[in-house]
Amino acid sequence: MSGNTFGSVLRLTTFGESHGAALGGVLDGCPPGLELDEAVIQAELDRRKPGGGPASTARKEADRVRLLSGVFEGRTTGTPIGFVIENSDQHSKDYDALKYVFRPGHADFGYQAKFGLRDHRGGGRSSGRETASRVAGGAIAQEILRAEGVSVLAYTVELGGIEARVLDPEGAQARPFFSPDPEAPARFEERIREVKAQGDTLGGVVEVQVLGLPPGIGEPVFDKLDARLAYALMGVGAVKGVEIGAGTAAARLAGSRNNDPMTPEGFASNNAGGILGGLSSGQPVVARAFVKPIPSIALEQHTVTAQGQATTIRVGGRHDICAIPRIVPVLKAMTALACADLFLLDRRLGRER
Amino acid sequence: MSGNTFGSVLRLTTFGESHGAALGGVLDGCPPGLELDEAVIQAELDRRKPGGGPASTARKEADRVRLLSGVFEGRTTGTPIGFVIENSDQHSKDYDALKYVFRPGHADFGYQAKFGLRDHRGGGRSSGRETASRVAGGAIAQEILRAEGVSVLAYTVELGGIEARVLDPEGAQARPFFSPDPEAPARFEERIREVKAQGDTLGGVVEVQVLGLPPGIGEPVFDKLDARLAYALMGVGAVKGVEIGAGTAAARLAGSRNNDPMTPEGFASNNAGGILGGLSSGQPVVARAFVKPIPSIALEQHTVTAQGQATTIRVGGRHDICAIPRIVPVLKAMTALACADLFLLDRRLGRER
Amino acid sequence: MSGNTFGSVLRLTTFGESHGAALGGVLDGCPPGLELDEAVIQAELDRRKPGGGPASTARKEADRVRLLSGVFEGRTTGTPIGFVIENSDQHSKDYDALKYVFRPGHADFGYQAKFGLRDHRGGGRSSGRETASRVAGGAIAQEILRAEGVSVLAYTVELGGIEARVLDPEGAQARPFFSPDPEAPARFEERIREVKAQGDTLGGVVEVQVLGLPPGIGEPVFDKLDARLAYALMGVGAVKGVEIGAGTAAARLAGSRNNDPMTPEGFASNNAGGILGGLSSGQPVVARAFVKPIPSIALEQHTVTAQGQATTIRVGGRHDICAIPRIVPVLKAMTALACADLFLLDRRLGRER
Amino acid sequence: MSGNTFGSVLRLTTFGESHGAALGGVLDGCPPGLELDEAVIQAELDRRKPGGGPASTARKEADRVRLLSGVFEGRTTGTPIGFVIENSDQHSKDYDALKYVFRPGHADFGYQAKFGLRDHRGGGRSSGRETASRVAGGAIAQEILRAEGVSVLAYTVELGGIEARVLDPEGAQARPFFSPDPEAPARFEERIREVKAQGDTLGGVVEVQVLGLPPGIGEPVFDKLDARLAYALMGVGAVKGVEIGAGTAAARLAGSRNNDPMTPEGFASNNAGGILGGLSSGQPVVARAFVKPIPSIALEQHTVTAQGQATTIRVGGRHDICAIPRIVPVLKAMTALACADLFLLDRRLGRER
Repeated sequence: MSGNTFGSVLRLTTFGESHGAALGGVLDGCPPGLELDEAVIQAELDRRKPGGGPASTARKEADRVRLLSGVFEGRTTGTPIGFVIENSDQHSKDYDALKYVFRPGHADFGYQAKFGLRDHRGGGRSSGRETASRVAGGAIAQEILRAEGVSVLAYTVELGGIEARVLDPEGAQARPFFSPDPEAPARFEERIREVKAQGDTLGGVVEVQVLGLPPGIGEPVFDKLDARLAYALMGVGAVKGVEIGAGTAAARLAGSRNNDPMTPEGFASNNAGGILGGLSSGQPVVARAFVKPIPSIALEQHTVTAQGQATTIRVGGRHDICAIPRIVPVLKAMTALACADLFLLDRRLGRER
Repeated sequence: MSGNTFGSVLRLTTFGESHGAALGGVLDGCPPGLELDEAVIQAELDRRKPGGGPASTARKEADRVRLLSGVFEGRTTGTPIGFVIENSDQHSKDYDALKYVFRPGHADFGYQAKFGLRDHRGGGRSSGRETASRVAGGAIAQEILRAEGVSVLAYTVELGGIEARVLDPEGAQARPFFSPDPEAPARFEERIREVKAQGDTLGGVVEVQVLGLPPGIGEPVFDKLDARLAYALMGVGAVKGVEIGAGTAAARLAGSRNNDPMTPEGFASNNAGGILGGLSSGQPVVARAFVKPIPSIALEQHTVTAQGQATTIRVGGRHDICAIPRIVPVLKAMTALACADLFLLDRRLGRER
Repeated sequence: MSGNTFGSVLRLTTFGESHGAALGGVLDGCPPGLELDEAVIQAELDRRKPGGGPASTARKEADRVRLLSGVFEGRTTGTPIGFVIENSDQHSKDYDALKYVFRPGHADFGYQAKFGLRDHRGGGRSSGRETASRVAGGAIAQEILRAEGVSVLAYTVELGGIEARVLDPEGAQARPFFSPDPEAPARFEERIREVKAQGDTLGGVVEVQVLGLPPGIGEPVFDKLDARLAYALMGVGAVKGVEIGAGTAAARLAGSRNNDPMTPEGFASNNAGGILGGLSSGQPVVARAFVKPIPSIALEQHTVTAQGQATTIRVGGRHDICAIPRIVPVLKAMTALACADLFLLDRRLGRER
Repeated sequence: MSGNTFGSVLRLTTFGESHGAALGGVLDGCPPGLELDEAVIQAELDRRKPGGGPASTARKEADRVRLLSGVFEGRTTGTPIGFVIENSDQHSKDYDALKYVFRPGHADFGYQAKFGLRDHRGGGRSSGRETASRVAGGAIAQEILRAEGVSVLAYTVELGGIEARVLDPEGAQARPFFSPDPEAPARFEERIREVKAQGDTLGGVVEVQVLGLPPGIGEPVFDKLDARLAYALMGVGAVKGVEIGAGTAAARLAGSRNNDPMTPEGFASNNAGGILGGLSSGQPVVARAFVKPIPSIALEQHTVTAQGQATTIRVGGRHDICAIPRIVPVLKAMTALACADLFLLDRRLGRER
């Protein structure tokens, strides 16, 4: 383990800095015979693109994925799937000022402490741009799941304190902000404009759902389905909290309220978020990720130089105001990778479900 | 990976069912030369014991740990540390009624779905009793950290909706419920008595802190310190949510509020919970685990038999009303294991800090 | 990875020193529903015991295995199988002389260099006694394979330069030295007596066979079946060489001689040792391990003290003259663990064979 | 584990088929601050190229490596190093005849059995071409070791039964066939011409040495230095045997002959091949890999079609007569990867050597 591989039998290894030559990855352990082409992966990447919305960066990234191996005549062969995404629109010069100063809320200080040097251009490996490789890998994981009748949804339930009031997850994919509520995007946009005008930034809450996962997926004890999901989601840069089902609220419920009664027709509620004892229960798996505001703000902040001297900084440049909506396909990808891995791992038991 | 090993270079592997012969584990990767005796481990196990408090089970467990290897003349040798905890007070007969029925809120259904059979006595491997092995392993991880000047604290910040108002984490270890607030235990007890009288159960919130961790610990991308912590804590049975620093609240803060300004004297706040970009920042690492209420309630609940027929169940027996305080040393142990592992992994870089 | 766990989805973790309290291990990833009792494991351990033969140590080891978890009502449950083997006959005093001197051909020097201290009693963790845990774990792996129609054989094809002339592997299990040749044991014994009288020791060659493994087991590239077998066998203390099928001799054959022709009835020869491109071919898998002579000899040898001063040593005590036959069940165990792991790993592909 | 990643804390993951778009890999865990440029990697790749010699294929492969990440201003940053090698000279049509027939001695049958389909063009992932990614990764591993004063040598000690009589490993790098004997290349060439004229192929023996490795590297029990080396070398396609130091011959030596006496000046011999108890002893580490003859021969061979019917095949095309010398840099690369991984893993112990 050195941090850049996710999964046990379905393993995604990624590489690439924000302003290096290219990003990419290798997905190992994909079953053979699965239909796969670049277009499916590209479609997910396109969802992560800096879009038209007011929350987006002005940076233009083609983010064109190129499959290098593991697919033959339109089907996976069971060998590792390598892919690259070339970096193009690089204004490395813009970042020279950041060479000797640590941006508050960013990884700069930690990288310097850990590695003794860092690629300061646009955050290097700690840039949100790193997640493009996750989205590509997660797109393939979604295809693995889809072939088994499992689908993954991700949508924005809150942005800058504004909640979605209607929950139509299936429709969310096509709406701005991946909003499950047809009316919310207008309110989200207004909030963003407001905050942008102040030179500030926003966070929000994203929910993911996994539908169709058979019961028994996950490994008891350390590799519970919820533990792996938490690991997957909290490993995305801006996420500072993860909850499953009733989640944090469960801590305030009585047992009689929190338990989901079982009936011959199935569970009568889903406070467990589809996971009991770390194993899927057959209900929809539901998790929420709490996304902090973008740390790059236009307002002046106090910080220190690499030499430890006090200074101030305004992080200008072409930055997003909110990690949502771009983080939504990333969280979907990580959910798919975690579930597909545990799904395939479960097969070693050789039982028919 | 098959679920019963935690860690990359410091690896805890555990085994044991609630009503089997014994529990135990192997801790591999412990550095040599560390002073270690059974008493230090026993002390942590004793903290997890069903205690005198009103939240506790009547079950008497000696939970006596026996070190089998890896220690010679009072010091670790660098070889794996094996340990066992014999099961004694086993009333397996009490559980025969559970053979053919699934308890709501429990792992029974998932185990049956996954494995096709299960050890139904007291939850088997899904029992909270499994965590004794984690506490033993975590006690050694705490010694590894202590030798490097790092300490781990865990304490109850909320129980059944009642919050601790004072935060004295250092004093918490000696107080009932590991309460950081000298006054809270009385209120906690009252709440528990109340709920117990109703045949119901409670949850709560536990906070952990890691003090003295040098900056740069954690691995960028998937194995971020926060991701590994979330994985460690969410892997404990009753935990349904995990947050780091400002956590879920960060999703509602503006960037200018959430960013921690840096000064020559250090960070001016700690919304990040001591973790930036997945690496420790040198500040205290702060995380919170949200613990659901105990699912074994004395009230009648709707459920199904193994054959899928409707039935009702009252889970009597010798059960806790709240996972707190017994879960507190477990969460401390998992925090220590996650941090010690990443600390030792970081050393491969060979840099002097 | 810290060295004491073997396998990917079927994982054996072992612990224990020669003269510590106990040895043992945890086997994680065993499929549920497999019939298993202690007697099957004990039978394999008994094969590894210091026997009656002239090659054996006088040390009496009960080597009684005790199963602690993972088995319920005579069947595996899919949860980790913990086991211990208590150490009894410990003459630790015998080894005090070895505290300050390095035995030639032993691990003493390396342990001191690596760990800075060591348990010098009887080799500690580097003792052959460590392999008892492997035999126990391997016995379970053999049961997993047996349930799939796969069997593992191990037998002595050479001892002290004396070759077995007849190859009856099935009969070998019941013969002294696990000899595939009914006549060889007498010649082996004579050779051992001869060398023992000179105060010297011997090595030999052990062959393993895996019968019934379906084609396609193994993972291309790094985790080839032959690579994992070589790793498994070379990880046993005294082994200094491993070959597959025609092995070292293949380096001197022409391609037309070495290739195994295929016919509708199957392969016409088995120079490949049942492995092509790292995957099983459906033929018997055949490997050989080359075992060095026991380094503990009664003759005087030159060595150095822990302080680096010249000295001489005679390693008296209760030592074997040859690692064969006791190493034979160990090599069988490692073969079974390697094959069962790759067999279960292959299942994640979800294909019917 | 799914077979395409090698290492524990220094991890190489590779991808790519012989006739796909590109090969490549990701090396994760490389320490930061190491000087590195493409030229160093390219130099190793050039050593693996189909050369001028008579043993070589006519296929022209540019094998130009392109570094995509992990290096900034000429130094490694500690983040993963991604690289690609584009495939160019692809005559995929040449291989159409192989779609429905299994080549004796090749992986075709196993891939079909495992995956149910395969990329038949030039062996796909089972092609020797896959090893280009290993050479690239191994070149970086060699730089990691070099910075610590450790060097790796690889040279041909036997080809087609012809032995090198002189052992000058340092000079071997610059000689044809990486021959340690200045006179051997002429004899090797003659042997190859002879066999080529017969339409047949040859194998040989390659020795690797690691100089300067400090004592104590390796992990006791399963991850011994010799076990990891055997795993690394046997994982290279054509290798059918691996031995350490005296190796297979040790099985026929008496203990008094095989033990290496220790003196205040160091070991008096090196039958152990620099490894005792699985840990480096500070002497040169010496291992030998036995390479089978190339299975693609121009002579007619009996085989079967994918439908199981008898047929014959002549494998024409642009093939090597002997895997040597091209396999030599591959074995050097694998040796470097295995040693660098264990070297970095050892650092977690935090001991000064």
